[in-house]
Amino acid sequence: MAMLSRILEPDSIAVIGASSNREKWGYRILRNIITGGYSGKVHPVNPNKDEILGMRCYPTVIDLPKGADLGIIVVPAPKVPLVLEECGRAGIEGIVIVSAGFSEIGEMERENRISGIAMEYGIRMIGPNTFGFINTHLNLNASIIPEMSERGGISFITQSGTFGLALVDWAVSQQMGLSLVVGVGNKADVDDSDLLEYFSADSHTKPIMMYIEGIDKGRRFIDVASMVKKPVIALKTGRSRAGRRATLSHTGSLAGTDRIYDAAFKQAGVIRARVIEELFDSAHALSMCKPADDGIGIISNGGGAAILAADLSEDLGLHLTDLSGGTIRMLKGVLPAIATPGNPLDTAGDASYDMFKDVLSIMLSDPGINAVLVIYVHAEMVDPCIPAEAVIDVRERCDKPVLTSWIGGKGLGTAIKLLKEKGIPHYPVPERAVLALNSLVRYKKILQNK
Amino acid sequence: MAMLSRILEPDSIAVIGASSNREKWGYRILRNIITGGYSGKVHPVNPNKDEILGMRCYPTVIDLPKGADLGIIVVPAPKVPLVLEECGRAGIEGIVIVSAGFSEIGEMERENRISGIAMEYGIRMIGPNTFGFINTHLNLNASIIPEMSERGGISFITQSGTFGLALVDWAVSQQMGLSLVVGVGNKADVDDSDLLEYFSADSHTKPIMMYIEGIDKGRRFIDVASMVKKPVIALKTGRSRAGRRATLSHTGSLAGTDRIYDAAFKQAGVIRARVIEELFDSAHALSMCKPADDGIGIISNGGGAAILAADLSEDLGLHLTDLSGGTIRMLKGVLPAIATPGNPLDTAGDASYDMFKDVLSIMLSDPGINAVLVIYVHAEMVDPCIPAEAVIDVRERCDKPVLTSWIGGKGLGTAIKLLKEKGIPHYPVPERAVLALNSLVRYKKILQNK
Repeated sequence: MAMLSRILEPDSIAVIGASSNREKWGYRILRNIITGGYSGKVHPVNPNKDEILGMRCYPTVIDLPKGADLGIIVVPAPKVPLVLEECGRAGIEGIVIVSAGFSEIGEMERENRISGIAMEYGIRMIGPNTFGFINTHLNLNASIIPEMSERGGISFITQSGTFGLALVDWAVSQQMGLSLVVGVGNKADVDDSDLLEYFSADSHTKPIMMYIEGIDKGRRFIDVASMVKKPVIALKTGRSRAGRRATLSHTGSLAGTDRIYDAAFKQAGVIRARVIEELFDSAHALSMCKPADDGIGIISNGGGAAILAADLSEDLGLHLTDLSGGTIRMLKGVLPAIATPGNPLDTAGDASYDMFKDVLSIMLSDPGINAVLVIYVHAEMVDPCIPAEAVIDVRERCDKPVLTSWIGGKGLGTAIKLLKEKGIPHYPVPERAVLALNSLVRYKKILQNK
Repeated sequence: MAMLSRILEPDSIAVIGASSNREKWGYRILRNIITGGYSGKVHPVNPNKDEILGMRCYPTVIDLPKGADLGIIVVPAPKVPLVLEECGRAGIEGIVIVSAGFSEIGEMERENRISGIAMEYGIRMIGPNTFGFINTHLNLNASIIPEMSERGGISFITQSGTFGLALVDWAVSQQMGLSLVVGVGNKADVDDSDLLEYFSADSHTKPIMMYIEGIDKGRRFIDVASMVKKPVIALKTGRSRAGRRATLSHTGSLAGTDRIYDAAFKQAGVIRARVIEELFDSAHALSMCKPADDGIGIISNGGGAAILAADLSEDLGLHLTDLSGGTIRMLKGVLPAIATPGNPLDTAGDASYDMFKDVLSIMLSDPGINAVLVIYVHAEMVDPCIPAEAVIDVRERCDKPVLTSWIGGKGLGTAIKLLKEKGIPHYPVPERAVLALNSLVRYKKILQNK
């Protein structure tokens, strides 16, 4: 654990294989570290250069006057064992090997060799064949991901293949608030379980999001995941016959039948997402909301949207609470005459501040309601920030989760930004909000069984 | 039918209740018609004004020197019977009543009265209580929707409540290519079935998208929908117990148990979508692609993405074709050594023009393959337009459907635009592409049973 913090929270970094050629990873990673705003020491290492990006360049890590916490290795694969050994001799105990050309192309022996060196010197190592990592809380982009992500509470452990990288890229472009993002690569040393353990103790990490193609040490994964006191949500591919066949050829390791993963996730208390949007949307809710017991409420100014959300809720097995007599009476007191109090609740077009404030407060006060989805369907001539402000104000005085979906065309941007800033999850369609809400309920059940 | 074209393809329009007050619908609709670029004649009608928006204003429709094809009524509900009668006397046979205040608030008698007037004068009428309609091929935005949609092949029939309006707003903001959009309102005369019949004959309309809360004349709907020689895809709310309960209070009419709708859609050959994204995404594919027999192929440069798509395909009951021996041999000839030919097919990271062109051509030439999903996962230092161009070039010489999903962060915009311009459906996540592909297969099955 202490060793992993050497890698993921370094005070100083050596980029071994740093380059001034813009086409090379050795340039891009160095540049990403600098432009990300990392405040620690950064040392380019390259025997053929005196200076890169205005920084003094050292021939080898052994020449570094004060060593480094972390060595990022970007040299061609055949040279990796040599420079790794030099890192060991220089006392660098945290390593990320970005270089490819190991077990993923059948070079098992080369990979075993670096594992041996790491063990010999007591090095902890992520990779090889990884895109690197991001630690937003240190402004540290030690990866080939071109854009630094927004700071937030979600940590992400992912396979490092092209798809894993594209997923991170997507998360970044969606302005998802991330804490730590790590590409596991070939897992010659550090694997998903090690990272889970580390993230579990990390103060910035709230939920942990995982993209998994296969796990080798199943027993350890279950043991570690069971101990994590944070929500873990995983997208694991290869559920299908065709998918499993392809997994076999894709990773070169047996992915196992899917039922085993299902059972393992269940035992370990991991929430399994079926599609990309469910993974990201659930992590978004889990990073902002407390888990919730079943028993949900749905409110909208447009009846159809509320009904649609109710439909999907029931599909997922969520329970729409039958409101208490007292709640119904209170709702009658504030709703327009043409609206009928109920759940889902339709305000019959009224999206005023007072209406949204009143119905949301009343619904949240019902003891059978544990979470509420508020759907605003955009009506011309209504400022969509007004119902958003009502939700924000009510939410501040209540700790039951409130999720939102503002539906309409352009012009919703400011309202959505407002909700996000106040820590209220927002989704562009109500069905995605329902799936995320379902994850809050699933996580509560997991906690009760832990 | 001829009468409906008087409404939806008018040569001249009278806006009855036109206003110069920017806060009023009577202003907004007139302005939307003008700014949309409609080239027909437009006449504001208002007894209290001489001129609105620089146009001569007439006291009543009877004063219009040459009458009008279409009258759009925006006056307060109590005045509607009078102005409708004037329309009848002036020989205006196509009417849209935007005004609310009829059966939706319990004013059945008032609604019956206007139905009687319409019948007396042989008027066809959409509404009351509708947001109006858009005909992109006439640049005609005769609605309260603030933005004109892009021109395209999808026509949309929708409930006119706030949610229906927000859905249109959303479709417009998504740059969905639309032909005709009509809000049915209270259906005092023209209903979903009449519009289906009309859209069926409309040369610009390819698929027909419907958002339905309830249908009154079920038998006629089934008869009409069965005859439509275009794909019809519908989102019908109220599947759930809670949803149905709410539908009852929302529309005031019995929505019927959901199983009846399921059976009706099946009999009528209507594809039922379960969620908003499925409705829009399927219409997008159906507007650009021919229907396809089952037997699909999946290609990606990132194995995980292909497996994810394969997983969902199997969930939906789609069949991933076992490639023929000849296809496998040809694939072996072009794939990198580390890649294994199969379906889903992983190019092992290679997203070059030649690789995408070769594998897509070969897969499409397999007689067991009826449609292909191409997934590009963005790798740094690859121009995402290059694999897009490969897909475009292959697609031009083949009429099997090809759908795409380009996954990654910013910087994919140009490639996605390119695909769209060339009529290749694109989706931001592969799972949404799979759902859309499934609709192409479902529609082919419907055609075979018609």
